[in-house]
Amino acid sequence: VEERESQVVLGLDPDPARLWPEALAAAPEQGAPAERAAAAMAIHCAALIASAGPACVAVKPQVACFERLGAAGWIALAVTCARAREAGLLVLADGKRGDIGVTSEAYAQAFLSSTPTPFGDVDGLGADALTVNPYMGRDALEPFVAAARDRGAGLFVLVRTSNPGAADVEDLPVGEATVHERVAEIVDGLGEGEPLADVGAVVGATEPQHVGRLRELMPRAPFLLPGIGAQGGRVEDLAPAFAPGRAGGLITASRSIARAHETSDEPPATAARMEAERLRAAAWALS
Amino acid sequence: VEERESQVVLGLDPDPARLWPEALAAAPEQGAPAERAAAAMAIHCAALIASAGPACVAVKPQVACFERLGAAGWIALAVTCARAREAGLLVLADGKRGDIGVTSEAYAQAFLSSTPTPFGDVDGLGADALTVNPYMGRDALEPFVAAARDRGAGLFVLVRTSNPGAADVEDLPVGEATVHERVAEIVDGLGEGEPLADVGAVVGATEPQHVGRLRELMPRAPFLLPGIGAQGGRVEDLAPAFAPGRAGGLITASRSIARAHETSDEPPATAARMEAERLRAAAWALS
Repeated sequence: VEERESQVVLGLDPDPARLWPEALAAAPEQGAPAERAAAAMAIHCAALIASAGPACVAVKPQVACFERLGAAGWIALAVTCARAREAGLLVLADGKRGDIGVTSEAYAQAFLSSTPTPFGDVDGLGADALTVNPYMGRDALEPFVAAARDRGAGLFVLVRTSNPGAADVEDLPVGEATVHERVAEIVDGLGEGEPLADVGAVVGATEPQHVGRLRELMPRAPFLLPGIGAQGGRVEDLAPAFAPGRAGGLITASRSIARAHETSDEPPATAARMEAERLRAAAWALS
Repeated sequence: VEERESQVVLGLDPDPARLWPEALAAAPEQGAPAERAAAAMAIHCAALIASAGPACVAVKPQVACFERLGAAGWIALAVTCARAREAGLLVLADGKRGDIGVTSEAYAQAFLSSTPTPFGDVDGLGADALTVNPYMGRDALEPFVAAARDRGAGLFVLVRTSNPGAADVEDLPVGEATVHERVAEIVDGLGEGEPLADVGAVVGATEPQHVGRLRELMPRAPFLLPGIGAQGGRVEDLAPAFAPGRAGGLITASRSIARAHETSDEPPATAARMEAERLRAAAWALS
């Protein structure tokens, strides 16, 4: 964050039906639909990384968007992560995984480490961090923590998300607290490191009243803050996230960058660069 | 269930380091480790389906186990699902996905439906059901419900899982109830259909005291019951699951079938067939 003077995380949520025209034009003219769409998706993400990347510290590929193209999509995801690393960006894989221990181990192998096989080790995606889901409890998270710590990577545990339905389960009252506050305590307990721990939290930016309270419960956790832009959140409301340092609040933006040209006279790449730089400057000034 | 006289769901959780010897022997002798391991995995799953499948009603591939081999693993998953369908088995994809609406839509495309692209539609895995995670609330589940309903498929929402850590979040007290009971109410509200709804619930078999109470809260939901065998659950404790009919309780078993030969004198395929048939008969007698 200090090196790039940016707390902006570029969300990569490519929809094959809404790719930049330049990506569609550069897609292969032959091949199965999955392969052509996956190639166009990788080209679109590369163009986004080239234009908005310099204002960002990381990319956050949304695994679902790639996975829907099957094996071809998985290759596009790997190619996109490699491109981001070449551009000096961290990779935060947004997969929201979580399962019983032995299965969380397998997901950790897929995203953070590697899988031993009789034919040799198979490298996973090699992400610098992964988003994980806490519903199944501590033992569903621990294999991710172990795998991440082992290679200097990190995790972001869903705590209080940015969607309206977050109220249904995450906000249920537990005594004087809420479910998401109890999850925050688990996150605080799992993390190691000062002033920032290796286990972070996803905290939606759409309801900023949560940010300050959750910072008290998780004083060392880096916050991944979705919901800025298209979902209605404002950078100006996020000051408490930065209490442990500038890297304490990472601001993710996807559609507001990738579709900035829809509300601008600029071509997609220029509009994306300008919007990412606007966000970068706003967050940097605030922190 | 009636047609096959079985409520047993064959869990497919292949670990490339513990495949049946016949699968390892049949793997390709050349190629990248990921491709060789994925091929061996698909052969192992095909052998499991051939031996234990006749005693089962469905397979439950654990997506994590395939995903850790990247694109090659995704192909092995698709091949395995096709093999299960040829054997007359339903496919319940165990992915435990869940995200904000637009992303849940993408996951639903990946597992249940298809993705429109400018190059033509890309079919997803075409599963008959998918496991999903309710932490993010109703609006994170609804796109899955819509996609599943549209093509006569179903969902299993995590309610009360079989791992010890389930107590950490799922069992938190909410007034007189618990988090998982509140989730059960959401599941009951989302489902349509009589006597069995199209939205089911994952209810761990390791703590059978939950099964009866959750049946009261979700009278029409099919229960997917993991935890029998290796995790310690017993078929005999699951009677309330079958209240809405024999298909009201689907019993999943993975390691206890795939590794039955480790505690038997029989070769893997024979031991797997015997264990699946033992489970089938026990559940059928009970329901």
